[in-house]
Amino acid sequence: MTVAKQSVQTPFEEKLCAIVGDAGIVAAEDEKASYEVDWLGKWKGRGSFIVRPDTTQALAQVMRLCNETRTPVVPQGGNTGMSGGATPDESGAQVILSTTRLRSIREVDPLNNTITVEAGVLLAHVQEQADRANRFFPLSLGSEGSCTIGGNLATNAGGIAVLRYGNMRELALGLEVVLPDGRIWNGLRGLRKDNTGYDLRDLFIGSEGTLGIITAAVLKLFPKPTARATAWVGCAELGKLVQLLARVRDTCGDRLVAFEMLTGQSLRLILDQIADVRDPLDQPHAFHALIEVADTRDDGLSALLEGCLERAVADGLIDDAAIASSLAHRQAFWKIREGISPAQVRAGKVVKHDIALPVSVIPRFVDAAESAIRSVMPQVHVINFGHLGDGNLHFNVLLPKDVSTGDAAAATVLLNRVVHDLVVENGGSISAEHGIGQLRRDELRHYKSAVEFDLMMTLKQSIDRNQIMNPGKLI
Amino acid sequence: MTVAKQSVQTPFEEKLCAIVGDAGIVAAEDEKASYEVDWLGKWKGRGSFIVRPDTTQALAQVMRLCNETRTPVVPQGGNTGMSGGATPDESGAQVILSTTRLRSIREVDPLNNTITVEAGVLLAHVQEQADRANRFFPLSLGSEGSCTIGGNLATNAGGIAVLRYGNMRELALGLEVVLPDGRIWNGLRGLRKDNTGYDLRDLFIGSEGTLGIITAAVLKLFPKPTARATAWVGCAELGKLVQLLARVRDTCGDRLVAFEMLTGQSLRLILDQIADVRDPLDQPHAFHALIEVADTRDDGLSALLEGCLERAVADGLIDDAAIASSLAHRQAFWKIREGISPAQVRAGKVVKHDIALPVSVIPRFVDAAESAIRSVMPQVHVINFGHLGDGNLHFNVLLPKDVSTGDAAAATVLLNRVVHDLVVENGGSISAEHGIGQLRRDELRHYKSAVEFDLMMTLKQSIDRNQIMNPGKLI
Repeated sequence: MTVAKQSVQTPFEEKLCAIVGDAGIVAAEDEKASYEVDWLGKWKGRGSFIVRPDTTQALAQVMRLCNETRTPVVPQGGNTGMSGGATPDESGAQVILSTTRLRSIREVDPLNNTITVEAGVLLAHVQEQADRANRFFPLSLGSEGSCTIGGNLATNAGGIAVLRYGNMRELALGLEVVLPDGRIWNGLRGLRKDNTGYDLRDLFIGSEGTLGIITAAVLKLFPKPTARATAWVGCAELGKLVQLLARVRDTCGDRLVAFEMLTGQSLRLILDQIADVRDPLDQPHAFHALIEVADTRDDGLSALLEGCLERAVADGLIDDAAIASSLAHRQAFWKIREGISPAQVRAGKVVKHDIALPVSVIPRFVDAAESAIRSVMPQVHVINFGHLGDGNLHFNVLLPKDVSTGDAAAATVLLNRVVHDLVVENGGSISAEHGIGQLRRDELRHYKSAVEFDLMMTLKQSIDRNQIMNPGKLI
Repeated sequence: MTVAKQSVQTPFEEKLCAIVGDAGIVAAEDEKASYEVDWLGKWKGRGSFIVRPDTTQALAQVMRLCNETRTPVVPQGGNTGMSGGATPDESGAQVILSTTRLRSIREVDPLNNTITVEAGVLLAHVQEQADRANRFFPLSLGSEGSCTIGGNLATNAGGIAVLRYGNMRELALGLEVVLPDGRIWNGLRGLRKDNTGYDLRDLFIGSEGTLGIITAAVLKLFPKPTARATAWVGCAELGKLVQLLARVRDTCGDRLVAFEMLTGQSLRLILDQIADVRDPLDQPHAFHALIEVADTRDDGLSALLEGCLERAVADGLIDDAAIASSLAHRQAFWKIREGISPAQVRAGKVVKHDIALPVSVIPRFVDAAESAIRSVMPQVHVINFGHLGDGNLHFNVLLPKDVSTGDAAAATVLLNRVVHDLVVENGGSISAEHGIGQLRRDELRHYKSAVEFDLMMTLKQSIDRNQIMNPGKLI
């Protein structure tokens, strides 16, 4: 005896099944949930269908069907975004189009220093493949075990190594993209030089699935660094830390791969909340930096960094420094830095700001922003840390323990405005690496100049004529 | 007694003069010629007016006037392009809009490692300003004393240091652009991370003045390399040279700043045509490389390169190598490399191909292309040289001495087709660094996929609604 199907298929559903088969549609309710909520549990929606094609051609056919039927599509990679860019709305009318089954490594070319991968390949897998070819893929994120290359490209992912290697944008040479009408643009070129017309690649990178779906990419590989030296620094003033950054860069050049900053307050929060973490220095300091240099060969790398920091102490730029003397020691430094995210979660409600500024402006900005926050909300604490080397601060604000949900929402709106007004005044960005998604969409419209917003809208309308790509996100 | 004006001003001319004044319009016939012909003397046209505004605001007003009157505009920088992209047509209806009076250095920020300059600033001037701030601006071209930053951006200039520092695209952080309708987009951000919407910057870079006019830019600065080592290598096979490139990169990492290739035939041409040049090696070789490494500090840089090359000789990868032992010696190596352009001019009529390929594919491509050329035109010589490190070959063909103008034109069409067919078959680019302009416009349409060409056309039509920006160029 066979069990009758529970419902009659709509023509749309029939066509969808004909394209991707049963294996390409997520039907089980419990499984569906993981696609309909973002990983932070902050945004939640409902998809009409959750579709997972396993080839670019099938994905293109799905897009053609959606375009013909004017069905809105929400592209989704590893669903690890920070801004709700991959979560559907609550209408139940949007198709979630997941790239997670596009997971082939199409080519590794060590002589050309490139790897060609499909959108659903995990970032960690690309790192491994590069390593096997005796090469290095530098993008590294907390979510690297679950985020996908397609998502990394759609959001122009950043992270710690941007100072040296650039964002995902700088790491991509070519793309394959399915356009909103289902046509496939094959721009999978592994070239360092190509001046044949408009730069379509960079239009899709960072467009958060609102212009098309990236299905594959040619990525740059680099020589593998074989030596590393890591230091922890204590300093009394942020301005001095910025000067130290310039000095280390002058001395070490491209060896400098990370220059991370933590305030004394951020460090105390980590020491309070995270087990097995200790302050590398004997005395407390107002500011700390985690500095890492790397090289393809070890000709006195540690001594180079040490000499540079000794001179900085002698010149009164910094107060103290410790150089990691072993791998375990180095890992202990990084454990502190990585402890800040879980420490914040445990500490309470945090209002986040992922901002970028010209590095030279940061000390002035931080003074102004802290005093502006104190004047509107004296009872909160600033948790300031980030990638000082590339000007990206996570300038977060910890609300009082007992804050109500309503008060927290109001405080978020107020603090966002206070901080972002100052960011824009100082030539900065209100979203350095986390993108716009749903989180900053209204703010984007508020802060962008009319000319820039209008140009963006012109591009959106000309490429996504039926406005079906990721509605409600970014623009 | 006053001299009466020679002609009555048209309303357009009156408005133009009101915006830029007499000093902003080039009127003298002999002076005009230098704007109406490209520097190679290959393209020639006639401008209705040659306008040189000295502020972005004045340039924007000129654009607004041209847009309202549907007057076509040809943007022009230093007029040093290779593809006729800045030369007007012969109608006499196009306004030449020169950026050469926009020459202010707006800001040098050593702590942020940025310089903000207007479009008309000479490339050499940016290099000097960077140097004064103890920083390095890496773009370097033969024309650096006369080309402008605006032109470098509009054509995404390349050159020798792309292997290490990237094209002009990678060197720009922010832009100020006057749009076709005269609005000013202020995107002058000096940020390493900014994920707030579509990447407008990269849409204008490389668009050859067909989407708007770049009037200013924030450019990246780098730590100044203080040590250099340079080598000249002889090798029997191109495939081995590609392997050597991978080895040097593995060993030296980012220290590798140049890896230039010359065939034995190219070297003989230089030795024949250029005075005071001698072969650095005792024996002739089929292929040569000029390799340069640089660093912010000299801890055995020369020994590092020497050791790497000694091992390559021992392993049979290369046959001979010479390391420059003095600055004069280094300059002598570079003089050979720089001799190839004048040597070609003296040798006769040359059909040029500025192509890029995945580095790994180059040996196979060169074999195939040489044999294809031999089969259609046995009497010509290939002059193959270029930036092997970034996959860019200047794969030129020397025609017989006595070739007629008509035969040369026919040979150009045939050779372009033979070479470019193979380039595209091998995943390459028909214009690596020289752009499209007038020179490759028909070929662009021939070789681009319908999807890509259509996307480009969509962008052009949506941004330049009245089709007044640089008509007849690129697209």
